[in-house]
Amino acid sequence: MGRYRKKTLIFQEPIYVQSSGTSVGPREGSGPLAGSFDEVFSSLYCGEKNWEAAEKQLLRTAIDHCLTKGQITRGDVDLLIAGDLSNQMMSASMVACDLQIPYAGVYSAGATLVESMVMAALWINGGFADHIVAATSSHYGVAEKQWLYPTEFAMQKPLYAQTIVTGSGAILLGRKRTEVKVTEASLGIVYDFGVNDPFHLGAVLAPAVAETTLWHLEKTKQALTDFDLIVTGDLGAVGTEIYRKILREKGLLLSDTHMDCGVMMYCTKQHPYAGGSGAGCAATVVCGHLLDMLKRGKKKRMLVVTGGVFLNTTFIGQKQSIPTIAHAIVLEREE
Amino acid sequence: MGRYRKKTLIFQEPIYVQSSGTSVGPREGSGPLAGSFDEVFSSLYCGEKNWEAAEKQLLRTAIDHCLTKGQITRGDVDLLIAGDLSNQMMSASMVACDLQIPYAGVYSAGATLVESMVMAALWINGGFADHIVAATSSHYGVAEKQWLYPTEFAMQKPLYAQTIVTGSGAILLGRKRTEVKVTEASLGIVYDFGVNDPFHLGAVLAPAVAETTLWHLEKTKQALTDFDLIVTGDLGAVGTEIYRKILREKGLLLSDTHMDCGVMMYCTKQHPYAGGSGAGCAATVVCGHLLDMLKRGKKKRMLVVTGGVFLNTTFIGQKQSIPTIAHAIVLEREE
Repeated sequence: MGRYRKKTLIFQEPIYVQSSGTSVGPREGSGPLAGSFDEVFSSLYCGEKNWEAAEKQLLRTAIDHCLTKGQITRGDVDLLIAGDLSNQMMSASMVACDLQIPYAGVYSAGATLVESMVMAALWINGGFADHIVAATSSHYGVAEKQWLYPTEFAMQKPLYAQTIVTGSGAILLGRKRTEVKVTEASLGIVYDFGVNDPFHLGAVLAPAVAETTLWHLEKTKQALTDFDLIVTGDLGAVGTEIYRKILREKGLLLSDTHMDCGVMMYCTKQHPYAGGSGAGCAATVVCGHLLDMLKRGKKKRMLVVTGGVFLNTTFIGQKQSIPTIAHAIVLEREE
Repeated sequence: MGRYRKKTLIFQEPIYVQSSGTSVGPREGSGPLAGSFDEVFSSLYCGEKNWEAAEKQLLRTAIDHCLTKGQITRGDVDLLIAGDLSNQMMSASMVACDLQIPYAGVYSAGATLVESMVMAALWINGGFADHIVAATSSHYGVAEKQWLYPTEFAMQKPLYAQTIVTGSGAILLGRKRTEVKVTEASLGIVYDFGVNDPFHLGAVLAPAVAETTLWHLEKTKQALTDFDLIVTGDLGAVGTEIYRKILREKGLLLSDTHMDCGVMMYCTKQHPYAGGSGAGCAATVVCGHLLDMLKRGKKKRMLVVTGGVFLNTTFIGQKQSIPTIAHAIVLEREE
């Protein structure tokens, strides 16, 4: 294939999911996945004075639920690996400051949860840590004003736009045997497909998510049928069509074995445009609904491929095209 | 000590520095360390049309020098772990896109180089990669307009302010035995010391850098005298005084065994206020001057503790205090 010697990780000794926690805003809490979240805030302010403080509250709440469910105190957590969509990742660093746990910031936009899980797995695998929390968040108000237009501007968006999810997911990884384990992962390459429309994220993301999906299958010599679920994040309705088409052209057929976190997050009555997006979208779906499915035995083995777009107002103003990346991780039920 | 069970990393099999590369802007290239940089651009634009493209050029140039000096092609690099100070780390992701190497974004502001080196060392230590490039950058124009005030505003700064360095440092880590190795590291905790003046970074950083220094010494049961150089980044003149005072109060005396990257970067004739700062400051000093000292045998063992402040215009506008972190790494000469 002439590809670079890029490495896929296969954990000889699996890393186990000890627990997870999620928190979301009101819109996400009225959607189809409402029952899978640990905490639903009834206002975008999450009881705080501004959106930035609200995003911090979201992240802190998700981590607190994760620690409580994992029956562990923050004193027993060796490291917090986290990132979020606010400039300079203020939400993550402020939560790390609250918790007083050593902190490593990571950033891959919408693919941040998977990047943080991969890094956490490496620390645990090497014997450098026993318990690591990987977490991420996004907040509609914080992200919209940073990247696109101030929400107050009330600009009409094209229908292919996506809605940034207000939510946070946290996951505690460790060595103690549980029902769900992390066994494989692939970090992706950054691509630039020439799209410079910051609303058309499905089109930007889908080819990157497809590339990482294909690469992971190729490197691990697996087929789609080795998984009973392929999860993507966050392509939305438009990106999902493009993604399935790219895979179909390679002879890989996806239908009901494929779910997209952006599509699952809202029902059409909520008018979410093409679906959810933002780091909190895949994070809340993975840490809530999808882990539940594995724990309950409804699914055995999932390939989760999350995509991220690197958006920055200055670059958008300069009409630059938008770089994109996708990272993959495999979650399976311990038999 | 009642501290959390935060872990310090000690690499049983040391990770070796294969090569490094640096590039800087005109001001840094006229300073005392001029001779240690691989590339000095004569203009802040680095031959590009805008500062954002210039920062990308800086980072790409540093990585190219690193690969050339390491006699390795980008095809043999397993992963690029990088971050920078531009919002959403656009410089790093765009360079990753150019290079087509798998990419993981990390962010700890001025402590980003050390965070990326620690993560790289973990990948290599676990056998998941042979060669990883860790890199970071900052650009005076990009960072000043993002965080503080547009440069065109020409606001007078207080004398305790620091000058954001235009520069990039890249380091190639691997397993092949060389003259310099990475043997220990500690990731730090985020602190908030209540300072909300974005110009007073020395005061924000110094206690965090001191905490991580003391913690690393305590966890590894070492004394200052176990190192022939303690390097901090980037305290500047003001922060250096505070840092030395904190350590002095603990009975630890620092004088000529301590150097600060922010102080070393400029001479006073260049009017850098209290010294250099930004992710590119420690990165260019470590990847240039300090590695040279180790290679030439002028120093044997360095504890490098770099600090980062999480700055964000929205938070500064909200008068919030500034969170800060410091990460440590030990570089030693192979005997």
